[in-house]
Amino acid sequence: MSPDTLSAFYRGYIDCLNRQDWDNLGRFVSVDAIHNGRTLGLSGYRAMLEGDFRAIPDLHFDIALLACEPPLIASRLHFDCRPSGELFGLPVNGRRVTFDENVFYEVEGGLISKVWSIIDKAAIARQI
Amino acid sequence: MSPDTLSAFYRGYIDCLNRQDWDNLGRFVSVDAIHNGRTLGLSGYRAMLEGDFRAIPDLHFDIALLACEPPLIASRLHFDCRPSGELFGLPVNGRRVTFDENVFYEVEGGLISKVWSIIDKAAIARQI
Repeated sequence: MSPDTLSAFYRGYIDCLNRQDWDNLGRFVSVDAIHNGRTLGLSGYRAMLEGDFRAIPDLHFDIALLACEPPLIASRLHFDCRPSGELFGLPVNGRRVTFDENVFYEVEGGLISKVWSIIDKAAIARQI
Repeated sequence: MSPDTLSAFYRGYIDCLNRQDWDNLGRFVSVDAIHNGRTLGLSGYRAMLEGDFRAIPDLHFDIALLACEPPLIASRLHFDCRPSGELFGLPVNGRRVTFDENVFYEVEGGLISKVWSIIDKAAIARQI
């Protein structure tokens, strides 16, 4: 994939997440997907995302920065939301918080195969 | 700059950091540099890095992942080091810790002008 094709693919992936269109997640994520060193597979990846939406009912993924150089996608995601209970062990309890995630994806065979994500949890701690 | 030129530029920047060659930092970092929303300028940026090397005498920047799409550089940096005292408020006290940083840079006029960095501090907390 070219950088532009990779960018379009990634925007399709983020749209899929924001629509919670789990039946189409397999168009973007490999059945062998590894997230932060853990083999989740497609079903575990879907379960992780479904859990995220349970914890954050108004979860929305906003792409703040995007750099694509095949086979890598690098994205800075911005979140502005009201997690209902605890988030990352922090008692947010419905307060509005904003935070960011810097994340890399490796794409193999047209699908996300590996993810290296770091979320700015300290930013959330500062807001509650 | 092309992706390849940007990649070579970034490897030169990391070499400069690892050599603690502060007199040449201005070949890579703008005098108006902004780091995580704070205007540090070149002198503040240098002071931040000098402080990092004081806190971590064996600090070494290793590029684990690199994606360049002008004007952005995205890098995952890996650290394997023995911070001498506290690091990010955590009492490391000379223990060996490994952690990662996912960071974006915007390059303008051939120099790093903006940085968006997230360090995996939770990984350090788990190791001490």
